[in-house]
Amino acid sequence: MVYFDTNQKTVRSWTKRQDEKAIKMSKVEHLAKNRAIPTDRIVEALELLISPGDRVVLEGNNQKQASFLSASLAEVDPGKVNQLHMIMSSISRPEHLDIFERGVAEKIDFSYAGPQSLRVAQMIEDGMLKMGEIHTYLELYGRLFVDLIPNVVLVAADKADINGNLYTGPNTEETPTIIEAAAFKDGIVIVQVNELVEELPRVDIPGSWVDFIVEAQKPYQLEALFTRDPKHITELQILMGMMAIRGIYEKHNVQSLNHGIGFNTAAIELLLPTYGEQLGLKGKICKNWVLNPHPTLIPAIESGWVESIHCFGGEVGMEQYVAARPDVFFTGRDGSLRSNRTLSQVAGQYATDMFIGSSLQIDQFGNSSAVTSGRLSGFGGAPNMGHDPRGRRHSTPAWLDLVTSDDQLARGRKLVVQMVETHQAGNVPVFVESLDAISVARTAGLSTTPVMIYGDDVTHVVTEEGIAYLYKAQSLEERRHALAAIAGVTPIGMKHDTKRTEKLRQDGLVALPEDLGIRRTDAKRTLLAAKSVEDLVEWSGGLYNPPDKFRSCY
Amino acid sequence: MVYFDTNQKTVRSWTKRQDEKAIKMSKVEHLAKNRAIPTDRIVEALELLISPGDRVVLEGNNQKQASFLSASLAEVDPGKVNQLHMIMSSISRPEHLDIFERGVAEKIDFSYAGPQSLRVAQMIEDGMLKMGEIHTYLELYGRLFVDLIPNVVLVAADKADINGNLYTGPNTEETPTIIEAAAFKDGIVIVQVNELVEELPRVDIPGSWVDFIVEAQKPYQLEALFTRDPKHITELQILMGMMAIRGIYEKHNVQSLNHGIGFNTAAIELLLPTYGEQLGLKGKICKNWVLNPHPTLIPAIESGWVESIHCFGGEVGMEQYVAARPDVFFTGRDGSLRSNRTLSQVAGQYATDMFIGSSLQIDQFGNSSAVTSGRLSGFGGAPNMGHDPRGRRHSTPAWLDLVTSDDQLARGRKLVVQMVETHQAGNVPVFVESLDAISVARTAGLSTTPVMIYGDDVTHVVTEEGIAYLYKAQSLEERRHALAAIAGVTPIGMKHDTKRTEKLRQDGLVALPEDLGIRRTDAKRTLLAAKSVEDLVEWSGGLYNPPDKFRSCY
Repeated sequence: MVYFDTNQKTVRSWTKRQDEKAIKMSKVEHLAKNRAIPTDRIVEALELLISPGDRVVLEGNNQKQASFLSASLAEVDPGKVNQLHMIMSSISRPEHLDIFERGVAEKIDFSYAGPQSLRVAQMIEDGMLKMGEIHTYLELYGRLFVDLIPNVVLVAADKADINGNLYTGPNTEETPTIIEAAAFKDGIVIVQVNELVEELPRVDIPGSWVDFIVEAQKPYQLEALFTRDPKHITELQILMGMMAIRGIYEKHNVQSLNHGIGFNTAAIELLLPTYGEQLGLKGKICKNWVLNPHPTLIPAIESGWVESIHCFGGEVGMEQYVAARPDVFFTGRDGSLRSNRTLSQVAGQYATDMFIGSSLQIDQFGNSSAVTSGRLSGFGGAPNMGHDPRGRRHSTPAWLDLVTSDDQLARGRKLVVQMVETHQAGNVPVFVESLDAISVARTAGLSTTPVMIYGDDVTHVVTEEGIAYLYKAQSLEERRHALAAIAGVTPIGMKHDTKRTEKLRQDGLVALPEDLGIRRTDAKRTLLAAKSVEDLVEWSGGLYNPPDKFRSCY
Repeated sequence: MVYFDTNQKTVRSWTKRQDEKAIKMSKVEHLAKNRAIPTDRIVEALELLISPGDRVVLEGNNQKQASFLSASLAEVDPGKVNQLHMIMSSISRPEHLDIFERGVAEKIDFSYAGPQSLRVAQMIEDGMLKMGEIHTYLELYGRLFVDLIPNVVLVAADKADINGNLYTGPNTEETPTIIEAAAFKDGIVIVQVNELVEELPRVDIPGSWVDFIVEAQKPYQLEALFTRDPKHITELQILMGMMAIRGIYEKHNVQSLNHGIGFNTAAIELLLPTYGEQLGLKGKICKNWVLNPHPTLIPAIESGWVESIHCFGGEVGMEQYVAARPDVFFTGRDGSLRSNRTLSQVAGQYATDMFIGSSLQIDQFGNSSAVTSGRLSGFGGAPNMGHDPRGRRHSTPAWLDLVTSDDQLARGRKLVVQMVETHQAGNVPVFVESLDAISVARTAGLSTTPVMIYGDDVTHVVTEEGIAYLYKAQSLEERRHALAAIAGVTPIGMKHDTKRTEKLRQDGLVALPEDLGIRRTDAKRTLLAAKSVEDLVEWSGGLYNPPDKFRSCY
């Protein structure tokens, strides 16, 4: 309430959030014992703790999901809880959208909507979902402390003790960051846990940051998103992997790096102990990694290639292996992985030589997007790691190797590599005149086109045809020609000019396999350090324990 | 030890770091009771816990210093502890360099060396200090998880309990990030605390992350770095402040922002409740802030301008005021501020419309540096917040307002504003042909020139002459002309072409005070909402408690 004192100076309450929280807390006193809400009364509790219009963070990234809490939120009475402004790293589960259909929630800010991207686009068109903005993970976390400060956060942990201390185990991920935004701004922190225990293996988040604990009906959902079965790696991917190792990793002396998800980078991981070893590169490149515990990295780790790995999150089945390799992974006193998506994104942005990833569409200037017709899939972490961080000031050999000017103020550059086959499955061309994202932006009423990685941030593009060294291009036109030279029989590639390509090869803007000393016929599956999930298990000495869906493959 | 088993497969230890830590821990068993090292035996303990060549993080940023631990490190026997690779946010105290002179440490990676910048440059020239790299804070933190993983960290907290749980109070700053890098990679975490207590007001860092606690002889050093006495704000600074509010904040609709340290931005803070109010801007701009608790922001907060503030660290004397304004500041259950330098840097980079700061030198293209002849001062957080974060994907009105193209893939831009008088004290020109940093880089053997903010990241420059809207410049030449138009009688300004300046004013690339409807004669100290530290105390209702050195001024 605002009122005026006798001097006409405004007098106001400075504890509005505290007061509102106190009222909410008193409403659930009869429900909660200490901090614990009984499992079967969570819907009732949510109805008392969440007010109409509240900003609510619901945890769910591409791996861990607060699935019990999201299912419960979908059951609240829209007459009591409505018009919520949801903030979610990932829209992954059906109920994440059901809450909008039911009128509980109204607006969304998010990062990634892979599995639900079609429905998201449709619901926006139907006016059932009010779009906030699409973010890369790190900017979404930043906004939790600036203009998207939450009223309530719904998150997931493995275990809690009676004092509310939390154990997140290998999947710490973004839980501490989300909780911090609410706990220190008089928001309400509700945590679903797999179990309540007497004593925790270690404390990942202090109990004084937590308001309520609820034991979930079943453990939170966890996706094995970073597992690629080597069985499905093709010889084309092996060829591209060899080119990348020779023409990028070795050429620029890449020491620290991030690999995106996918068969292309899985191929590279499995070529290091074979092809990389033949080239004498062990101990010289690829030493410090920022990535999830990819099972396909096991052979490289076992062969002594890898000095360290910092992880965004965990990976199903890798728990025991990681715990047995503490010199490589970040682990806690209990032995298990400590991941941290926020810090890993900071490291991936600022402290690595290279980001390498894939995309669904690339235009003639190298702009790329994973948003294709009718799908609003978002970005995840790619934009954060896939750009040249202009705040970076330290140099490394790879970073300096990309200096193209002798200006006294010239600076190095981060390697941002796109690795794609010229066509997707079904013979759909990856290289296109214009991104679908442009029309998606129009339909969804976005202020800007959802580009995942901008062409002027991309330094290299690798296809089965060759490598385009885009960082050397002096003009947009030259960039276009270099891309066309490796774009195969796509709308862009068909425009390429043979003479021009020759010149670009001479100038080092384009390299074909033969320019790198690679014979296409050498790209065989026999080069893979592991050819199946079974091989990975063997490399791990039985420590890797693949989920059933991958087991069924061998 | 590496050996081969019968199948010629390499067998190696994967617990080298764990084993080394266990050995070190056993060596101090006789010294430490539980986790507590007696105050008078810390030097002995450091000699046993730190091995030659170790990577050691010593906490010390521009505010909080682990001063007891740094003084103790300077006392260890260089025969026992030597060749250390130090990692420090800030080189602030004399003993930070004494350890190099004494042969305890050899190499340094850092962010900022304000008070010691002259000595740093000299010691590098004399070969007494081996330079690593200069960083912005966030990239240094990132490297702690990639290629600068520490063996030992020496940090500071307010209080600890017997289980090692830590209370950092208002100055959480970067302590959790530093500790995380060591605690989860089998490094050793040593914390100096002001006192050991039975029960903590709140837990900022869990005890299971901490190895040793030592009660310091006296509380850690804490600098009142963000306090500017309004008494010293000049009318020129007020003029510049009015121009910034009118020609940048209002024009672009700036909602979220960071202010650097300095009298220029302090002037703006004190003009919001007067000049800003006259313009009817309250509730329309400057709502969400990322900055330390600047005392000069008190009048704007009290007048209802400020919705939220997230802080890098605390500020001496602001403790009670902050605790009484929880709707604005992030605070814990104990009532006191929760700062977090890492998260605040993320927010300042990605989630704000604008960064505004100052510099000592700006060249003809807008490149700026705080490194001047003979001084290797480093960067702090400026490069991180003073650049266009190309990973950003969400839009805000201010960000969109800087779009200058109608390309379908055009994106917005962060406002990066430099606000400088054309001359420093002693009539030294700020605008120069070439940055001193170029020769400093040569002398110190740096791989790149230590530029603080690059010209192509700067969107606006404000001087007492006017504003240059550099983001509108279509070429380097146009950028140079726009800068010259507002550079006064400096080497750059004297080259300006009057006709050209007229054209730039018409095209909106340059604005003089009259173009913004500001009369120079209106820029009076009477416009400041507070004219002294005493006024600030009054605005705060007696809650602000300035340090003695500022009290002595009134």
